[in-house]
Amino acid sequence: MAGYSGSKQEHAMRLRRIEGQIRGLQRMVDEDKYCIDILTQVSAATSALKSFSLSLLEEHLAHCVAEAAQKGGPEAEAKVKEASDAIARLVRS
Amino acid sequence: MAGYSGSKQEHAMRLRRIEGQIRGLQRMVDEDKYCIDILTQVSAATSALKSFSLSLLEEHLAHCVAEAAQKGGPEAEAKVKEASDAIARLVRS
Amino acid sequence: MAGYSGSKQEHAMRLRRIEGQIRGLQRMVDEDKYCIDILTQVSAATSALKSFSLSLLEEHLAHCVAEAAQKGGPEAEAKVKEASDAIARLVRS
Amino acid sequence: MAGYSGSKQEHAMRLRRIEGQIRGLQRMVDEDKYCIDILTQVSAATSALKSFSLSLLEEHLAHCVAEAAQKGGPEAEAKVKEASDAIARLVRS
Repeated sequence: MAGYSGSKQEHAMRLRRIEGQIRGLQRMVDEDKYCIDILTQVSAATSALKSFSLSLLEEHLAHCVAEAAQKGGPEAEAKVKEASDAIARLVRS
Repeated sequence: MAGYSGSKQEHAMRLRRIEGQIRGLQRMVDEDKYCIDILTQVSAATSALKSFSLSLLEEHLAHCVAEAAQKGGPEAEAKVKEASDAIARLVRS
Repeated sequence: MAGYSGSKQEHAMRLRRIEGQIRGLQRMVDEDKYCIDILTQVSAATSALKSFSLSLLEEHLAHCVAEAAQKGGPEAEAKVKEASDAIARLVRS
Repeated sequence: MAGYSGSKQEHAMRLRRIEGQIRGLQRMVDEDKYCIDILTQVSAATSALKSFSLSLLEEHLAHCVAEAAQKGGPEAEAKVKEASDAIARLVRS
């Protein structure tokens, strides 16, 4: 079971909304909309993706990482390292 | 005519690929994939969106802003201000 | 003359303030302050650096890039390319 | 004792280097250096600040958050929430 199983529906809905934003961007390019208006939409989609990943990450820390920490040992350390690497990718993406 | 009309096909293709990445994310959530693997995909989609917006912005500077600068006057200033605001939204999104 | 010569004093002041924030961070580490409080200060310093670069960039577009655009030719194109590369580094840093 | 006490010297050294970068920026502005070269330096300083915060965050997860998780209860939840909020500020700064 995934750490985010409690909010699966919410995540699915967020991603559908982001998919709608990307399709909106395709329409804008197709209809030769003004560059700046497209860029504003891209910023909105990027922010939505970041919010999604931050909420997923919080659940991951609260479930997967916390459970590993309770058991302790090398697996706990590996989970913290793995989460830190994901945070670094997120911060730099 | 939009400043990006020369690369409309390329932009459309990029956006379709990003749409595919978002749909892939929906599938991953639906199949209870591991949080970290989902986060890696989100970082990839975010990077792709940023690359799209950077290439759109470069065309905007090369066409719309440069043409306004050639005419000069308050419209040129307004175009620079508008582009700078879009860059700020991008940097902070 | 640099494109930002009109606001040199303002830039110098901003950078001195950022230097103060970095020195504050050194003090916090030295006094074993709580990690989260240090991270909050790092976010503030990062935001201040981004604001500084966005205002520098706006002046660069308004002066150096706009002047090159008025002359036109390969130098104008080179200036737009150079600015776009700097924006990309900023967005990804 | 702070979660980062094991690498206090390393953190202090990193921050001194960042302070040096900020002072270098002040010199560049003072000597009217070219905008683009200043922007390149700002990107480098921003990246250095992000690396510092990511290493601090990893230690925080490995010590403070993991220890709270071992005890469990509302304090563990509070620590995860606090770390997630710090990550969100970092991602958005």
